[in-house]
Amino acid sequence: MQLHLQTWPAIEHYLRDNRTVIMPIGSTEQHGPNGLLGTDAITAEAVARGVGEATGTLVAPVIAVGMAQHHLAFPGSMALRPGTLIAVIRDCVESLALHGFERFFFINGHGGNVASTTAAFSEIYAAASFGGGAGTRLRCTLRNWYETPGVAALSRELYGEQEGSHATPSEVALTWYLHPDRAMPMNLDPPVAPRGSFTDAADLRRNFPDGRIGSNPGLATIEHGKRIYDAAVHDLSRELRRWTCPSS
Amino acid sequence: MQLHLQTWPAIEHYLRDNRTVIMPIGSTEQHGPNGLLGTDAITAEAVARGVGEATGTLVAPVIAVGMAQHHLAFPGSMALRPGTLIAVIRDCVESLALHGFERFFFINGHGGNVASTTAAFSEIYAAASFGGGAGTRLRCTLRNWYETPGVAALSRELYGEQEGSHATPSEVALTWYLHPDRAMPMNLDPPVAPRGSFTDAADLRRNFPDGRIGSNPGLATIEHGKRIYDAAVHDLSRELRRWTCPSS
Amino acid sequence: MQLHLQTWPAIEHYLRDNRTVIMPIGSTEQHGPNGLLGTDAITAEAVARGVGEATGTLVAPVIAVGMAQHHLAFPGSMALRPGTLIAVIRDCVESLALHGFERFFFINGHGGNVASTTAAFSEIYAAASFGGGAGTRLRCTLRNWYETPGVAALSRELYGEQEGSHATPSEVALTWYLHPDRAMPMNLDPPVAPRGSFTDAADLRRNFPDGRIGSNPGLATIEHGKRIYDAAVHDLSRELRRWTCPSS
Amino acid sequence: MQLHLQTWPAIEHYLRDNRTVIMPIGSTEQHGPNGLLGTDAITAEAVARGVGEATGTLVAPVIAVGMAQHHLAFPGSMALRPGTLIAVIRDCVESLALHGFERFFFINGHGGNVASTTAAFSEIYAAASFGGGAGTRLRCTLRNWYETPGVAALSRELYGEQEGSHATPSEVALTWYLHPDRAMPMNLDPPVAPRGSFTDAADLRRNFPDGRIGSNPGLATIEHGKRIYDAAVHDLSRELRRWTCPSS
Amino acid sequence: MQLHLQTWPAIEHYLRDNRTVIMPIGSTEQHGPNGLLGTDAITAEAVARGVGEATGTLVAPVIAVGMAQHHLAFPGSMALRPGTLIAVIRDCVESLALHGFERFFFINGHGGNVASTTAAFSEIYAAASFGGGAGTRLRCTLRNWYETPGVAALSRELYGEQEGSHATPSEVALTWYLHPDRAMPMNLDPPVAPRGSFTDAADLRRNFPDGRIGSNPGLATIEHGKRIYDAAVHDLSRELRRWTCPSS
Amino acid sequence: MQLHLQTWPAIEHYLRDNRTVIMPIGSTEQHGPNGLLGTDAITAEAVARGVGEATGTLVAPVIAVGMAQHHLAFPGSMALRPGTLIAVIRDCVESLALHGFERFFFINGHGGNVASTTAAFSEIYAAASFGGGAGTRLRCTLRNWYETPGVAALSRELYGEQEGSHATPSEVALTWYLHPDRAMPMNLDPPVAPRGSFTDAADLRRNFPDGRIGSNPGLATIEHGKRIYDAAVHDLSRELRRWTCPSS
Repeated sequence: MQLHLQTWPAIEHYLRDNRTVIMPIGSTEQHGPNGLLGTDAITAEAVARGVGEATGTLVAPVIAVGMAQHHLAFPGSMALRPGTLIAVIRDCVESLALHGFERFFFINGHGGNVASTTAAFSEIYAAASFGGGAGTRLRCTLRNWYETPGVAALSRELYGEQEGSHATPSEVALTWYLHPDRAMPMNLDPPVAPRGSFTDAADLRRNFPDGRIGSNPGLATIEHGKRIYDAAVHDLSRELRRWTCPSS
Repeated sequence: MQLHLQTWPAIEHYLRDNRTVIMPIGSTEQHGPNGLLGTDAITAEAVARGVGEATGTLVAPVIAVGMAQHHLAFPGSMALRPGTLIAVIRDCVESLALHGFERFFFINGHGGNVASTTAAFSEIYAAASFGGGAGTRLRCTLRNWYETPGVAALSRELYGEQEGSHATPSEVALTWYLHPDRAMPMNLDPPVAPRGSFTDAADLRRNFPDGRIGSNPGLATIEHGKRIYDAAVHDLSRELRRWTCPSS
Repeated sequence: MQLHLQTWPAIEHYLRDNRTVIMPIGSTEQHGPNGLLGTDAITAEAVARGVGEATGTLVAPVIAVGMAQHHLAFPGSMALRPGTLIAVIRDCVESLALHGFERFFFINGHGGNVASTTAAFSEIYAAASFGGGAGTRLRCTLRNWYETPGVAALSRELYGEQEGSHATPSEVALTWYLHPDRAMPMNLDPPVAPRGSFTDAADLRRNFPDGRIGSNPGLATIEHGKRIYDAAVHDLSRELRRWTCPSS
Repeated sequence: MQLHLQTWPAIEHYLRDNRTVIMPIGSTEQHGPNGLLGTDAITAEAVARGVGEATGTLVAPVIAVGMAQHHLAFPGSMALRPGTLIAVIRDCVESLALHGFERFFFINGHGGNVASTTAAFSEIYAAASFGGGAGTRLRCTLRNWYETPGVAALSRELYGEQEGSHATPSEVALTWYLHPDRAMPMNLDPPVAPRGSFTDAADLRRNFPDGRIGSNPGLATIEHGKRIYDAAVHDLSRELRRWTCPSS
Repeated sequence: MQLHLQTWPAIEHYLRDNRTVIMPIGSTEQHGPNGLLGTDAITAEAVARGVGEATGTLVAPVIAVGMAQHHLAFPGSMALRPGTLIAVIRDCVESLALHGFERFFFINGHGGNVASTTAAFSEIYAAASFGGGAGTRLRCTLRNWYETPGVAALSRELYGEQEGSHATPSEVALTWYLHPDRAMPMNLDPPVAPRGSFTDAADLRRNFPDGRIGSNPGLATIEHGKRIYDAAVHDLSRELRRWTCPSS
Repeated sequence: MQLHLQTWPAIEHYLRDNRTVIMPIGSTEQHGPNGLLGTDAITAEAVARGVGEATGTLVAPVIAVGMAQHHLAFPGSMALRPGTLIAVIRDCVESLALHGFERFFFINGHGGNVASTTAAFSEIYAAASFGGGAGTRLRCTLRNWYETPGVAALSRELYGEQEGSHATPSEVALTWYLHPDRAMPMNLDPPVAPRGSFTDAADLRRNFPDGRIGSNPGLATIEHGKRIYDAAVHDLSRELRRWTCPSS
């Protein structure tokens, strides 16, 4: 159940029984020679829809551009500054809170979003804390689809050390499963990209010339993508149920 | 050619010949009893893709949540504060400008975005103006798909006075053409909503109880939607060509 | 009745019967070879005073520096960034709202202010909308004195195509009527400035070397200025009355 | 020589010999039962013009609304938040600096502006300091016209202890000299208002019910106003000359 | 070597050989019935000094108030909003970067700081990334002293499950070691506090009535504190050396 | 009684009888060839503790980095931009206000903090003023320890004209009294530094090459420092008592 495909009376009806909304958040940034710029948004949105269907939970529109300053030296990458992303998340959450939504389950596809999103949650809570009184009923949580137990096990099994940390075969495979016409199997050179850390965009491009970090997305297949998708949806559906009904 | 479905080398290649990118911008807000919350984002994105195909121009991801504070009293409506939207647009434009993009053609689906988007352009230019010197090569422009000559003529022909100004049959029809499974033909009561102006969310809901303003979306049909889509894509493709090649 | 020439008890008295205040807003920016830097502020303030007298409405101090980043390459031009102007308007409106003012009728002399002023109104309303509840009683509206029906007809009659869009004979004439000692009749070369659009300050100066855009202010006369003043005051007085008493 | 009554070529000409501009800054706030709301702006602007004439220095438009949060419980008072005023001053100074102005001599009419204006100067300098390198040539200074030696001596002589600290006979007298038609001689009750400090608007109104603080503006006369004006212009003209030509 | 106890020529001398500075960051917030409000700042600062001595690295002044909005319902707790903390970190890092410091090793005593500090690093890098070009030489990293391998092993050994997550015996013990006169051994009721998550201040106080979360600080001793201190300094000194000399 | 060495129940107990808290604020900036970078923070904190002991008043943690943009060209100097410092002060005051603190007595060690701190107080009050209604009970005041009558008399007696205005013998002596191991008696060349004003960091360094302004800290002795400390504590204790109990 996607919010943007509903009417407002349908949302009013939904809120009689359910105060939870899934908030997919991704990024639009380079994903190596054969990964799509939209990888993190595409995957977060698709997994969110799957979890929404599995659990009967509403899914908000994806936040498609995230905190990706470190990728800006590669054409097509887009980024919100941390302060901008914090404001976006605050405004989106506060909007839906006006209608009675209380629980915001963010499904995230991009590691670079974690700090800003968590800081945004704190800004939302801080507004209540500095107000004194009874506080807010809102609860926000963030899960990275690529780190659930099932996905982690699968990526270890399928790719081992070649999973890496950016433009990973896992996320590339999942994207290809979702957009098979965009699959670009490719022998990469070197097969496994260098590992390491980075600071700003120039630093990342200098050290990771094709954009990959420690990964070999040449291993990705559409069939892998389906297994990864299923694992992510399965795990996050269970986590969503636990989070919203702690006692069940 | 959608940016999020490309790799970064493909964008690098694109930039050899073309410095223009289409930026669709919409909103996620109530659209009356039978219009979708995502109407403005869905329509802006679809028209942008159509224009992108017709003109060979890259299309960035849609900005799906806009400046819609006035709709916040209806469940499911989401809004960015003007200052937040300005920051989002600035960050997105500045990101792509780093790679060589120079012309940003915003295709807009929501009247409430116009002032903030225009102010964002001024913030971008002001950064150059206050810097002194040779200034920026960036050029930004905004077009509302629902106000092109062809679309205006069509909506007059099809709906006359019943077009109204919010949750219009034009935009509802276009949405249904794009998502026929979400079409909800409905006899509305009253058929034509009251007209008028509004200030904040409470004011709008008080005066426009089902969310429509001056419109009768009960007139919308999928077939109308196709004609409106074609007119919007045709007109905006011509405008894009003129804007990028003034002399042609 | 100008606010800055009243005492606070006089304003308290005024508020017993009237909740409306006129807010003149202009700019301090180049207006070509013979137009004054203060043109937009001088004209907005004078028209506002005229409307205030005609309608018995209080007039606030003029906002004399506006959003004029595009003129900053000409000496003497001053500009507020859009975000600054939005904050100024918000603070001024919120100040007067504390005392019971509810209707803010902005009379504007500068096209560059429109987007930021409209965005400021949305920020004011958004504060109420995000607060939930009964919302705000405030209503803000903006009118450009140079675009009322009477002024438009006059400028067509007097100048036709030579009116242009910046440093127009209309505004120059009005300024000279108000400051006859500053009238500077002049044969300009070329008589009519080039037309076109602009982005930042360097771009504007490059394309419009003497600051005029499409206009021939050499046609301005003091007598024209009086007619334009009368038309603007007449039209805006009627609009103010309609806006504050919709039924009358 | 007032900036807003000049053309841009006149400013270009001025800048060949002179890099200094006078920036009047005031406030629009209650000034007791018979003082005008615009007192601080009117006086700052008039003294600035006088100093401008005496020294051949350009005078920018007055900043008419200042940091006056403490007066907001009296009708007609307007205030910019400190952060807003800081942004206004920064934008105005940075605008004129683009054209070659280097020295900004603020003539201030309102004690509440001092901290925010000084902080604004620091923001301007900090932008240069955090940039490293050779730094900025800009120099800003602030003078309160009501505290020059000559004005202080006059107010002691004329009013002694009854000068007080807000809605003083000095500033009221000066305003009446400038606007004799707005003079409102009045016997006040009590003749001298209570003294003391204040925090926010409610606190000020509670402790100073008619808005005056420690003053007896019933002593003001138009003739006093002329003497005060002359003293202020004389003293500040000398200070301006010293500040711009330290060795003379 | 503490920065605040040096002269500027001493820092200039230091910079000839060393571009690293340790930045301790803590918090001032409730730490249960017998933990000090300054626990997180005291411990971060002390560990930082120890690491500074062990490695010959300069130590900046501690950031003593952090992002602790969730503790604000307990008297004495202080918090910076996330946006404020981000600005503080940015300004401090940018200050020292002007002098040639390139590596900023943050030693953190408070989990609530992690997201905002990480977001601040991204703001610093983003300023470089959006600037294009060669980017920044700055590198920032954050380590929580309470999570080093040695400290984690010790706390498991000493407290097992009773370590908890706030007002832990580890941090209380370390504080007592540093301030033995402030040691307050106490039998707590219940001995082990409830576990769980929290959102804003009211929520935390409701669920954790004495401020502890999952911990039994009644187990803390001064002798434990010394062992914890030694482990933290040992581990972080090694990490600092590795971070600054990756190849060694 | 230092806040950071208390537990929250101790603060709760304190608040039964006392609503005042001392807020020390300093700076971390160059203090000439033999003055410590931490001079202003060290002195403000020590004097605050002394006043706290003498009057039984709680002392908050020192704000150790202040508004010192003008010192940034000397290694080791740190600065918060004015806007950042304003936010820090606002957050700290608002935090403690939640618990019932009403009176904030800032003891300041750095002239550069005065404007930003005063502006911060106005921001805090403005939040109440713009809220309308009964306003805030908070009261904030700022005292510079180096300007009390007793300290001023002592510095005149001990140093006369050689006190200067930055890196003064007074503050250096006080620092050495507090950190006798950091005393660095030194014959300076020239003995007395040049006087003058400054704007940004480059300007200050250019005109004051060793960082001193008008001072001869070569005159400082530890014994002087004790006398200065005693005078500051004595004077500010009396001022604090008067401020909190105006009638006593």
